[in-house]
Amino acid sequence: MTATPSAPLFDRLVIIGPGLIGSSILRRAMLDRGIARELVASDIDPKVCERVRELGIADRVVQDAKEAVRDADCVILCVPVGVIGTVAAQVAPAMKPGAILSEVGSTKVSVINAVLPALASRPDIAFVPAHPMAGTEYSGPDAGFPSLFENRWCLLLPLENTPPDAVARISAMWEAMGARLRTMTPEHHDRVCAIVSHLPHLLAFTICGTADDLADETRSEVLDFAASGFRDFTRIAASDPTMWRDIFLNNREALLEMLDRFMADAQAMADAIRKGDDTIIVDRIARGRAIRRTLIENHQA
Amino acid sequence: MTATPSAPLFDRLVIIGPGLIGSSILRRAMLDRGIARELVASDIDPKVCERVRELGIADRVVQDAKEAVRDADCVILCVPVGVIGTVAAQVAPAMKPGAILSEVGSTKVSVINAVLPALASRPDIAFVPAHPMAGTEYSGPDAGFPSLFENRWCLLLPLENTPPDAVARISAMWEAMGARLRTMTPEHHDRVCAIVSHLPHLLAFTICGTADDLADETRSEVLDFAASGFRDFTRIAASDPTMWRDIFLNNREALLEMLDRFMADAQAMADAIRKGDDTIIVDRIARGRAIRRTLIENHQA
Repeated sequence: MTATPSAPLFDRLVIIGPGLIGSSILRRAMLDRGIARELVASDIDPKVCERVRELGIADRVVQDAKEAVRDADCVILCVPVGVIGTVAAQVAPAMKPGAILSEVGSTKVSVINAVLPALASRPDIAFVPAHPMAGTEYSGPDAGFPSLFENRWCLLLPLENTPPDAVARISAMWEAMGARLRTMTPEHHDRVCAIVSHLPHLLAFTICGTADDLADETRSEVLDFAASGFRDFTRIAASDPTMWRDIFLNNREALLEMLDRFMADAQAMADAIRKGDDTIIVDRIARGRAIRRTLIENHQA
Repeated sequence: MTATPSAPLFDRLVIIGPGLIGSSILRRAMLDRGIARELVASDIDPKVCERVRELGIADRVVQDAKEAVRDADCVILCVPVGVIGTVAAQVAPAMKPGAILSEVGSTKVSVINAVLPALASRPDIAFVPAHPMAGTEYSGPDAGFPSLFENRWCLLLPLENTPPDAVARISAMWEAMGARLRTMTPEHHDRVCAIVSHLPHLLAFTICGTADDLADETRSEVLDFAASGFRDFTRIAASDPTMWRDIFLNNREALLEMLDRFMADAQAMADAIRKGDDTIIVDRIARGRAIRRTLIENHQA
């Protein structure tokens, strides 16, 4: 389905939670009116609503979510993964028949399990889970920008009973945002994201804590001498705490499995260093370089 | 001591190992002839010597280290930390009386222990260990650039018997390179660098290996979907294997101590996630943000 000036993809698109991701969708859709004729933003926090009004990135701002979704043909939940189920339960009864419900959470199995009960009595609503893999370490409505999704992946996780037309419309929206699409199962999604994104964030938060626990003198020097290694970790570690707490708790199983593998590998590296085993050490370092090279070839670095 | 056009800081400055760091020193000194009247480069690898000649970043290139250091008033060893002792033993007997020997290794206790025996019969040589905390993930003579040390820290680790005049001259050289100076003990240096730089590199190498060990299907998707978290880790992990193997082995004690602390903290985070303990998770994330804020205030981020 292609958007044309005479027929936008959606008549009324509602963004619940206009933070980094939500406000970036709004900003892009404000620039491309082929995405939606009317853009509505809603947030539980009146200060966020006020800020979205000031920024002028929505046609209407409606604090009450149930009221905001009325007559919308598409509602996208851009709230932390820990509350997606609750918000879905709030808005589903107020949505019009045949409307699309989507979300942009960073975890999928638990989010889908949390949303499905809310839709049990509304089989007419098409649920299209999605995950745009884009972001920065900043959060809130001021952090968004219209090109955030340009050339980034957006993963689609349609359920067995998701109507193909709804998937096509959500796909067309993300393509209009500049994203590249890939479809996979929720289980596979959670494992891939655990190693690619969730575990690196966990390690970055942890090393900042480890440094913070050092004796006062060393800690102040850690801050003074943060070379590129540590500095890169703190950039990752600057992300939003609520969002990441929810991600860790909601992707618990896959994340803990990847952390276990990582800890075993780190222990093997420690043993090799203790024993002075050159071969293992160089092999690990060489693998890092090989992966880096592949990323550069894939234009991901 | 200030360099003036009529009296350069050194008459003949020799760089052994013109890689990323060594060739950056040469490049900067070529632009600022107040640092040395004559710049000599030496490398065990004839291809590196040839490349330095092609780049034109030294006045003379002499492959044989013993010959290169003849009549030099300052020799800086820019070789991997694992061979600094060996190279010091090679060049010390050929150095002129009263000359300065310096090095730029990323670890200090083991490097100093390896160099001291080479100087036992040459008490007239002034040994000034130093560590310019600058670098990129690239290596070799082509990787250097003259502004590499601009506004970066250079740590000085003078020994008890290092003549103050030699420390002053090495300090003046690094200041001329744009670096900021700090003096500390070798032991303290090794602990600070273990947490700030060596442990982050070890973690980055390890997570690349962990990802590489995943089942084929997941691995290829890891490469496809490397979001910012994992991508930042692979940048760190792209560094030179020999250099990092040597750093890990030469800062074994401090590194393994920091790794132990980190592993205990990561385990605590895993337990908190398993138990759903919000408070601990949010506390760790908040610390990461706090450290990041301090780095930004310190202009290190």
